[in-house]
Amino acid sequence: MRVIARLLAGLLLAAGLLGSAHAEDGYDLWLRFRPLTGAALSQTETRLGSIEAAEADGTAVAELSRGLSGLLGKPVPIATGGKVLLGTANDPAIKALGLDLGGLGRDGYLIRTVGDRTVVAGGSQTGLLYGVFHLLRLAQETAPLTALNVREVPKIDRRILNHWDNLDRYVERGYAGQSIWDWHKLPDWTDPRYTDYARANASIGINGTVLNNVNANATILTHPYLEKVAALAAVFRPYGIKVYLTARFSAPKEIGGLPHADPLDPAVAAWWKAKADEIYSIIPDFGGFLVKANSEGQPGPQDYGRTHADGANMLADAVSPHGGIVMWRAFVYSHETPDDRAKQAYTEFVPLDGKFRDNVLVQVKNGAIDFQPREPFHPLFGAMPKTPLMMEFQITKEYLGFATHLAYLAPMWKEVLDADTFRPKKGSTVAKVVDDSLDGHKLSAMAGVANIGSDRNWSGSTFDQANWYAYGRLAWNHDLTSDAIAREWAAATFGPDPAVVDPILSMMMPSHQAVVDYMTPIGLHHLMGRGHHYGPAPWVAGGPRADWTSVYYHRATKDGIGFDRTRRGTGAVDQYAKYWADRFDKVKTTPPEFLLWFHHVGWQEKLGTGRTLWAELLHRYGQGIETVAGMRRTWDGLKGKVDDARWQQTATFLSIQQKEAQWWRDASVAYWQSFHGLPLPPGENPPPQPLAYYQSLSFPFAPGDGK
Amino acid sequence: MRVIARLLAGLLLAAGLLGSAHAEDGYDLWLRFRPLTGAALSQTETRLGSIEAAEADGTAVAELSRGLSGLLGKPVPIATGGKVLLGTANDPAIKALGLDLGGLGRDGYLIRTVGDRTVVAGGSQTGLLYGVFHLLRLAQETAPLTALNVREVPKIDRRILNHWDNLDRYVERGYAGQSIWDWHKLPDWTDPRYTDYARANASIGINGTVLNNVNANATILTHPYLEKVAALAAVFRPYGIKVYLTARFSAPKEIGGLPHADPLDPAVAAWWKAKADEIYSIIPDFGGFLVKANSEGQPGPQDYGRTHADGANMLADAVSPHGGIVMWRAFVYSHETPDDRAKQAYTEFVPLDGKFRDNVLVQVKNGAIDFQPREPFHPLFGAMPKTPLMMEFQITKEYLGFATHLAYLAPMWKEVLDADTFRPKKGSTVAKVVDDSLDGHKLSAMAGVANIGSDRNWSGSTFDQANWYAYGRLAWNHDLTSDAIAREWAAATFGPDPAVVDPILSMMMPSHQAVVDYMTPIGLHHLMGRGHHYGPAPWVAGGPRADWTSVYYHRATKDGIGFDRTRRGTGAVDQYAKYWADRFDKVKTTPPEFLLWFHHVGWQEKLGTGRTLWAELLHRYGQGIETVAGMRRTWDGLKGKVDDARWQQTATFLSIQQKEAQWWRDASVAYWQSFHGLPLPPGENPPPQPLAYYQSLSFPFAPGDGK
Repeated sequence: MRVIARLLAGLLLAAGLLGSAHAEDGYDLWLRFRPLTGAALSQTETRLGSIEAAEADGTAVAELSRGLSGLLGKPVPIATGGKVLLGTANDPAIKALGLDLGGLGRDGYLIRTVGDRTVVAGGSQTGLLYGVFHLLRLAQETAPLTALNVREVPKIDRRILNHWDNLDRYVERGYAGQSIWDWHKLPDWTDPRYTDYARANASIGINGTVLNNVNANATILTHPYLEKVAALAAVFRPYGIKVYLTARFSAPKEIGGLPHADPLDPAVAAWWKAKADEIYSIIPDFGGFLVKANSEGQPGPQDYGRTHADGANMLADAVSPHGGIVMWRAFVYSHETPDDRAKQAYTEFVPLDGKFRDNVLVQVKNGAIDFQPREPFHPLFGAMPKTPLMMEFQITKEYLGFATHLAYLAPMWKEVLDADTFRPKKGSTVAKVVDDSLDGHKLSAMAGVANIGSDRNWSGSTFDQANWYAYGRLAWNHDLTSDAIAREWAAATFGPDPAVVDPILSMMMPSHQAVVDYMTPIGLHHLMGRGHHYGPAPWVAGGPRADWTSVYYHRATKDGIGFDRTRRGTGAVDQYAKYWADRFDKVKTTPPEFLLWFHHVGWQEKLGTGRTLWAELLHRYGQGIETVAGMRRTWDGLKGKVDDARWQQTATFLSIQQKEAQWWRDASVAYWQSFHGLPLPPGENPPPQPLAYYQSLSFPFAPGDGK
Repeated sequence: MRVIARLLAGLLLAAGLLGSAHAEDGYDLWLRFRPLTGAALSQTETRLGSIEAAEADGTAVAELSRGLSGLLGKPVPIATGGKVLLGTANDPAIKALGLDLGGLGRDGYLIRTVGDRTVVAGGSQTGLLYGVFHLLRLAQETAPLTALNVREVPKIDRRILNHWDNLDRYVERGYAGQSIWDWHKLPDWTDPRYTDYARANASIGINGTVLNNVNANATILTHPYLEKVAALAAVFRPYGIKVYLTARFSAPKEIGGLPHADPLDPAVAAWWKAKADEIYSIIPDFGGFLVKANSEGQPGPQDYGRTHADGANMLADAVSPHGGIVMWRAFVYSHETPDDRAKQAYTEFVPLDGKFRDNVLVQVKNGAIDFQPREPFHPLFGAMPKTPLMMEFQITKEYLGFATHLAYLAPMWKEVLDADTFRPKKGSTVAKVVDDSLDGHKLSAMAGVANIGSDRNWSGSTFDQANWYAYGRLAWNHDLTSDAIAREWAAATFGPDPAVVDPILSMMMPSHQAVVDYMTPIGLHHLMGRGHHYGPAPWVAGGPRADWTSVYYHRATKDGIGFDRTRRGTGAVDQYAKYWADRFDKVKTTPPEFLLWFHHVGWQEKLGTGRTLWAELLHRYGQGIETVAGMRRTWDGLKGKVDDARWQQTATFLSIQQKEAQWWRDASVAYWQSFHGLPLPPGENPPPQPLAYYQSLSFPFAPGDGK
């Protein structure tokens, strides 16, 4: 007894000591599986205390065993007759149960309570793995484990991360350290972190990853690098994750020795075909190519007078025999500055509808500008019915304050997914365009620009992990609510205690709106620092192109502010279905959150809120700051209920966020005042510094800048 | 009882599960303090089971308590009458013991067994902290803890790390991820890793750190960055570590608005004085400046026709009122390519001896070229008796295969420290020049270019941690043997079991010689890939300057190979004391390991080994490869005795090392054969590829390249 007590004390201490350096450093993400207690423990023990698996050495059983062993605090036996039965639709033990296994496809699964047993049946080993992670989620949340009757099939086939990672490990728009891909040591050394990356993605249904930056380097397509890619693909394969690469359109010149890269030249097409054959010879399940062409200086088919369709189809023909796809980005704008950049993608791509091969998807950002804190849905959604369009969301917070601002992005994404395009008719939401339930293409996909880096906590902050999580969950099922996803994530990340989860939800849910409010309220956009996009810089003007400035977007004058995209202005409203075009064209019928996106409005004009525009702006800034202050108060109340390490970092980050929210407000107010000189509304404090001070601040080494 | 058993099982499992993801990932370095067992446990409990400290909330007592709690597996009480008594020479409880506390200075300490108690007495709180880490080392090594009688005073006052870290977190010559300094989030967010960095350094006596690259950016001297530096200084201060910065000589132009940076212009001097005042106003214990001037494109006093002394003295006057120092690097070479770059530093600096202010040190690399796998000691050592010279070692393995090659560097450093300069007379070792026991300057210092980055294990590999460790220990006491340091490190890092430590020592001790043998045997040097210095590239020629090529250094012809630095050649030998000059001037009396450093030797000339030079080269390449193969066999034998995570990574790295050792041999052999066409000695296999293959390999994204 004394020996045990001593040993126990030692272990407790060791755990505590380890804890100070290691535990809860965020590395485990939402896969923590810390020991349950009380009723949750006994329920889990009773219902899931042992495992039977048709494929005893598969990934699914290994993950279930690992997760349950953590939750139960002891090894979970794997044996015939186990309380959990795992299998695919082809396994006799599953077939014998007579479950309705039709329509599961590759990724779907059932979870059913059958007598005393819990059955997880997957459409394939991958579907089974997804089912296992679902079951673990239920157990970790301490949900009831009786009478389970779950049937899940993803709405979108390809759920993909885009890594904007350069080969020197610099991550463009990365705020979580450097790239986790240690190219130099690959293929020999495959860091265990690659496996943990695959586990995390599989647990939320992500099944594809584009390893390198859309601003591509052709070196990734050389044989030594393809061997490195193959080593990563081998790590990811058991987790159902395919690798994709970005293809630099000029690669035939740069690494192929050809004089040009004209997609209609048979020699160019032959080079790509040979390159695709080479890739598939070492990565048989290679996913395909993502291409950014003729955009922001990247080469493309237009360099040779060809269309985006010419370029995409040439690559599509190269990968088609192997089952590969091409994802062709619609984020394009010409070298000449247009009257309205918001119109460009629509103008260029709509005429190409129907001209793409059937293994091409066009990848469209959620909005027409560039991942602003809030944008109306992109007018291309619904406007190319003959082409599968895939959604591109940005998980990394390029325009949302980087890693230190807490902003839960599911509400932003849901707003776009749920938006009704009215094309061809009411009820045609963006989500239905993307999941192809509307147009019935053979491909559907969603992309999220990853927020993953070498930081120990993967995403730069604990709460940024929630955005990775939410992206995966929404790609799987866009009908999930932001609230439900946040609840799942918070319980997995901080434990299921409602005294912790509820306050955390109260922080997360208004957090995106807070960022919109203190940065770019009422439809303002693109007012961030030049290049790096850090901090307020509404005064940015000049430089190589007008649409890389702030003044291009806000168009402030002595009299008013906002971008007139109505029929009296650039006419961008007419890129939407008539329903929206008519509404966006008028101030009264434009949703207030997009007012200055579509209209130039007088500073003293009265809005629907009863305030003048000027007063409304100040009100919004204040609301944003106050929401952050409230988040801080809530978090302060969680001290001691959340482990010290994660509590302290989040507390500090929230203090940075509040300081920077105030900075956004003060700098913006000082700048707007320089146009109109209007007094501040009653109760509003003047900015503590003159405008010149805010303009003097510079951040030459802000992280994640494009290079 | 059942409850306890259950809890125990849970804890064991939790520890194991945590283990799979976290434990032994190398983060803890040599400060692991895992629970002792058996006699070591009872000895430590008996001798060190409780603590009394005069300053109860000091860093020393906190570290001792943390370390002992780990070793004993339970909290260690801090109370009057504790078995360990901590204090400084000023504390009454220490004074009362009548110990010989004279001469401890700031950093020295005593550890004494006094009756039943163990007393640690420091010359200051810093000395006490060093004493505590010494005591913990003894306990962790399971050394006897009775009759302790330790007196330690460091031989060198300033034991400094140089971080070649850029402000964008890129680390020049870094092979362990990116810079650990997260400048963007400083000063608000001070990562707990900064504290662990300070702990690790204090535990080996390092008391200074230069935070930024010698290829400097003036932005670090702007006020916002100085506030970030101050936040780091505040974290390091309780651990006795001062911060230093590199000073870009042209800063007065770049951030000061002055038209030039001429050190003799009073306006320039005044700018630096004001800048120093500003720094000390927020960092009162700021250490001073490190300067790389007029070298590899960096600005310096010669831009204005002034000398290095003019430049250094101007900065020295700025920091002198605050007790700051200037470290002025001797690694200089002019824009014009010289007859022999090895001669340049000596030629430029010896005439300046006696012309520097007394708070200036000249920082000299161990050898005259640039951190090659082996170099003869720098001829400046002993040649500037009126100037304190500090040693600059490179801990990061720029020219030694990066992180995947196991090379324990203490033997290389000892070889230089123990070298006898014969200036002014026999017995005047380099170490005595550096520690100032020879010349009696008021300053002594040593610098090591850090191998620290954001990788979880800090240094890129477990064994590279040994080089950080060994650097600190040698800076403290250069009389320590390489073997003793390796033994300390291995016991702390892998546990004290001789069945583990002894084989690990057998790997470490010959590892540096192995790298010399398979890369650059017999005095060859600088044959690595251009720019990044990865892999063999003895064929590098052309480009901006001759001394940035390989052919400049090996000078191979049809007849022979090697750089003639004798009196018939460049005469570099005469930069050494006559004793060495005469010896280096003749093949027979030149140490064989430096033969081709000083001599051009015929391929077929017979050496002292009885082999021709050509055969000797092949023999050496083979020896190097065979040593690595032996290290692999030894490591294979440790499987199961070393934790899986660290074992697997090292095993993979050793396999990479062996592959690359073979690559070095094959590429070199193919290249040398292209000169002379001689057959291979019997038993030697021809390179498996033609020379053109090796020459075709390119590594555009090798890590750590200069930018």
